[in-house]
Amino acid sequence: MKVAGRPMRTIWLAEDGRTVEIIDQTRLPHELVVLRLASAADAARAIRDMQVRGAPLIGAAAAYGVALAMAEDPSEKGLDRAVESLAATRPTAVNLRWALDGMRRHLSELSAEQRFAAAIARAGEIAEEDVAINRAIGEHGLRLIEDAHRRKGRRGTVQILTHCNAGWLATVDWGTALAPVYRAYDARIPVHVWVDETRPRNQGASLTAWELGQHGVPHTVIADNAGGHLMRHGEVDLCITGTDRTSASGDVANKIGTYLKALAAADNAIPFYVALPSPTIDWDIEDGGAIPIEQRDPREVTHIAGWTEAGERVEVRLTPADSPAANYAFDVTPARLVTALITERGVCPASREGLLRLFPERRRHAA
Amino acid sequence: MKVAGRPMRTIWLAEDGRTVEIIDQTRLPHELVVLRLASAADAARAIRDMQVRGAPLIGAAAAYGVALAMAEDPSEKGLDRAVESLAATRPTAVNLRWALDGMRRHLSELSAEQRFAAAIARAGEIAEEDVAINRAIGEHGLRLIEDAHRRKGRRGTVQILTHCNAGWLATVDWGTALAPVYRAYDARIPVHVWVDETRPRNQGASLTAWELGQHGVPHTVIADNAGGHLMRHGEVDLCITGTDRTSASGDVANKIGTYLKALAAADNAIPFYVALPSPTIDWDIEDGGAIPIEQRDPREVTHIAGWTEAGERVEVRLTPADSPAANYAFDVTPARLVTALITERGVCPASREGLLRLFPERRRHAA
Repeated sequence: MKVAGRPMRTIWLAEDGRTVEIIDQTRLPHELVVLRLASAADAARAIRDMQVRGAPLIGAAAAYGVALAMAEDPSEKGLDRAVESLAATRPTAVNLRWALDGMRRHLSELSAEQRFAAAIARAGEIAEEDVAINRAIGEHGLRLIEDAHRRKGRRGTVQILTHCNAGWLATVDWGTALAPVYRAYDARIPVHVWVDETRPRNQGASLTAWELGQHGVPHTVIADNAGGHLMRHGEVDLCITGTDRTSASGDVANKIGTYLKALAAADNAIPFYVALPSPTIDWDIEDGGAIPIEQRDPREVTHIAGWTEAGERVEVRLTPADSPAANYAFDVTPARLVTALITERGVCPASREGLLRLFPERRRHAA
Repeated sequence: MKVAGRPMRTIWLAEDGRTVEIIDQTRLPHELVVLRLASAADAARAIRDMQVRGAPLIGAAAAYGVALAMAEDPSEKGLDRAVESLAATRPTAVNLRWALDGMRRHLSELSAEQRFAAAIARAGEIAEEDVAINRAIGEHGLRLIEDAHRRKGRRGTVQILTHCNAGWLATVDWGTALAPVYRAYDARIPVHVWVDETRPRNQGASLTAWELGQHGVPHTVIADNAGGHLMRHGEVDLCITGTDRTSASGDVANKIGTYLKALAAADNAIPFYVALPSPTIDWDIEDGGAIPIEQRDPREVTHIAGWTEAGERVEVRLTPADSPAANYAFDVTPARLVTALITERGVCPASREGLLRLFPERRRHAA
C-alpha cells in the first residue's frame, strides 16, 4: 500500500541483495523509520521487540532471518541454530513455526554452498505468497463492500468498523481485514473506517489509523467503547476484523474486544465479517473455547506510551500504584455471531460445512 | 468511605464553618490533595475543571457555591449572579440545575441577613440527602450481592464488573453502583471488582480503582475490551453500573461502552444491574433513544495524561497527527438488557411498570 503516495511493503530485500529492510513499527505512527537487518540476530530482535508484528509478517521475517543466517554459517548446525533462535522469539505465533519448518525442509536438501541464494529466493516466495493470499482476500471481500454500497442505493459512504490492526502492516502487503477496504477505496467506492483504538496496545490508534491515513482512506479513531453506540445509530454498515486462530467450526480467536463488537453487530443486524488467510484455521480444534488465551504483562494496561508535543516518546502510569491489572490478549467470538468468513478461496459461512466447501481437501482430516 | 483507613467524603464544611473543602479529583489516583473553596468563584472553578465531578457531587458542590456567594453578597442580585455563574459550569448536568433552583427557592424567601447561615445549612442538607439516598441504594443492592453469593453456595468470591466511576467519588459518600459493593465488603461477603478502565477519560483506572483500593476492596483493572472474555469464562457473577439519565421505560444512558457490557451479560445470562438515585429518572422521556448524547473534545481520544516514574503529570499523543477522532460520551442501554434497577426505594424491573410501582406518585404524570 502507499506511504506518502509511494507504494511500500513491510519487508523487502535490500538493493544489495544480501540484507533485508523493514519498517520499524514501534516508531509508528510518529516516525517512519526503515531498519536494515544484516544478520539472523537482527531479524530475531526485530520480531522479539515487535518492530515487525502480525502473524503473516512474522512468518516472512523469520524466513528472511534464516536466509541471513545462511550468509553467516550455512552448515547444518548453523541452520538448526538459526531456526531455534528465531522460533524462540514469539513462541505462540503459528506462522513463525510454519515458515521456519518450511525453510528448514527446503534448505536441508541442498549443499551448504547453495543455501544462502536458495534461502533468499524461498523467503521472497513466502513473502509473495502472503501478498497473493491477501490480494485474493481483498478481491472476495470487495464484493461484500460492493453489496453494502448497493444496499445503500449507491448513495453515501460505506461505513466500516474494524478492531485492532489486520492491515498491511500485519502482513507483507494488503493486510487481511483491510485488504477489501483498500480494494474498495482503489475502486472509488466511497468508504470510511471507524478505527477502534484497541486497548491496551493501541494497535488501532497507532497502526491502523496510520496506514489508512497514508493510503488516503478516510477514517476516524474511536475508543473501543464507542462501536455499540455507532451501530445503534446506523453509523456502521459492516464490520471486518482479522483473526489469530479460527476453529474448524468457524469460531474466531482475535484481539480482545472483538466479541463485544460482534455482539453489537448481531444486536443491530449489521454484517460482521472475519478475514483470514487459511493457515490461521486450526483444523484440530472444533470449539473456539479450546483455544488457549495468552495473558500478557499487566503493565500494558497500567502504563501507556505516547509522544509529547516535543516529539519525545514517554511512558506514563494510568492506574493507582497498588491496583493490580489483568491483560487478556484475545477473546473468542463464537461462529453464530460471524456473518461470514473471507478467505483467499472465497467467502463462506462461519461453520464446519462452510469451511469444508472451500477447503474440501480437509474433509478426510475432519472425518 | 475510607481513605488510608480514615473515613472521608468528597466535600465537607471546613472547621471554620465558613469555607468548604473538597478532594481534588484531577490529582487522583497519584496524589490526595484537599482544596479549600472560599468563594463562589472557587466552587465554579472546581466544577468546571472537574476537580469535583459526578452528578450528585456536582449538585452538592453547587449548593455550597451558592452558600459561599451569600457570604460575599447576600442581595437578590448576588443570589442571581451566583446561581447563573454556577449553572454555566457544566450545562448538561441535571443535578446542578436542580440543586441551584432549590437553593434559590429556599433563600429568596429569607432576608439578606439570614441567607448565609441558611444557605450553609441547606447545602449541608443536600449533601446529607445524597448520602442517605446512596446508603439506601447500597442496602437494596446488598441483597442482590447476597443472592449471588448464595447462588455460589456461599463459596468463593462474588465477582462484580463495573464500568466508569459510580463510586463515592461521584457522590458525597457511598456512591451509586459501588454502594452495594461497599455494603457487601463491610458485611464480610467476599467480593472482587473487575474495574473497566473506561476510555477515553479513564475514570475506572484512575478513580474507581483508587477508591476501592483505599477502602480495601479487592479489585483488578482491565481494558474495556476484556469484560466479554471474562463473562464467557465464568469470571463475572454480576455487573453493576450507574446511569446519567434513565428513561421512564427503564432505558439507561450511561458512560460510553455500558451497552457493550450489557450485551455480553445478556449473552452469558449474567445479571446486569443499574443503580440510580431517583432524580436521574427523566419521566418525560419514554424511549432512551431520545436522550441527547454529548460529543466531547476528540483530544480526549487522541491524547492521554498519566504520571511518569518521577511523579510528573505528562500528556502524550496516541494517534497519527492527521487522523481525526470522535468522542461520544454516553450510550443508551435498552431496558431489555437491564436485569433490574436499584433505587433508593428498592429494586425493580427496568420497565415503566417497574418504576411506577416504586414511584406511584408519578402515575398521574405518566398518564
